[in-house]
Amino acid sequence: MDDQALMDTALQQAQKSYDEGGLPIGAVLADAQGNIIARGHNKRVQNNDPTSHGETDCIRNAGRRRDWHELTLYTTLSPCVMCSGTALLLRIGRIVIGENQNFMGEEAMLKARGVKLEVLDHAGCIALMAKFQREKPDVWNEDIGL
Amino acid sequence: MDDQALMDTALQQAQKSYDEGGLPIGAVLADAQGNIIARGHNKRVQNNDPTSHGETDCIRNAGRRRDWHELTLYTTLSPCVMCSGTALLLRIGRIVIGENQNFMGEEAMLKARGVKLEVLDHAGCIALMAKFQREKPDVWNEDIGL
Repeated sequence: MDDQALMDTALQQAQKSYDEGGLPIGAVLADAQGNIIARGHNKRVQNNDPTSHGETDCIRNAGRRRDWHELTLYTTLSPCVMCSGTALLLRIGRIVIGENQNFMGEEAMLKARGVKLEVLDHAGCIALMAKFQREKPDVWNEDIGL
Repeated sequence: MDDQALMDTALQQAQKSYDEGGLPIGAVLADAQGNIIARGHNKRVQNNDPTSHGETDCIRNAGRRRDWHELTLYTTLSPCVMCSGTALLLRIGRIVIGENQNFMGEEAMLKARGVKLEVLDHAGCIALMAKFQREKPDVWNEDIGL
């Protein structure tokens, strides 16, 4: 599995959430060999849970581990301050970001603290997020604390 | 209810978690009148959930809201980078901290971003956390990503 294929899997999670009426942001955790450890997506709407962003949901699904520094987190959207903080707490070493055009998260903080970042400018991630922001701007604003 | 009484309630949550075999860190969210909105405690051990710190669990329990900026978060221990990020995402205006002697979290980042902080140096919070760190240092280290 390469970065593009793992991002496609994260986007499938985002699409699943969109189809459920939720925010279309998905994430995947993979080990150095590209094996998928966990999947997740935003569940704020579905679970009435303000902490359930895609990345944090994915990390939650991975359960207790001690090898976080060896894992890569794939997320369809640039991670917010909560999800960035979660990645920093666990010392996740690398984050691959689908896009940061619809929302710029805490990439500067992550880089400053040593996390390796890559932004794919993934057309599918950009299109799905832009569609949701147009369709449900109020739910989107709630998700980023506005 | 005053800050001391609300911190005592957060400490009851921490003690509950300790009694369950988990990490003794508790939290309470209260409105400007001191009414308790939600309670929570660390559930990493209980739920096999690395994202379930006391503060994040408490915020999760509060559900979807739009009045976070009017709320105060009480936590028995200085908040880590994940819980600080969660508070920043939601624009929680004020955090009252039981103690920061057993662990210093991201107080500098919170202050720099405009959150009002107060540290109570609460003897009960200090004693319970110190006891747990002595008894289960490995579980404690896991909780802060070491």
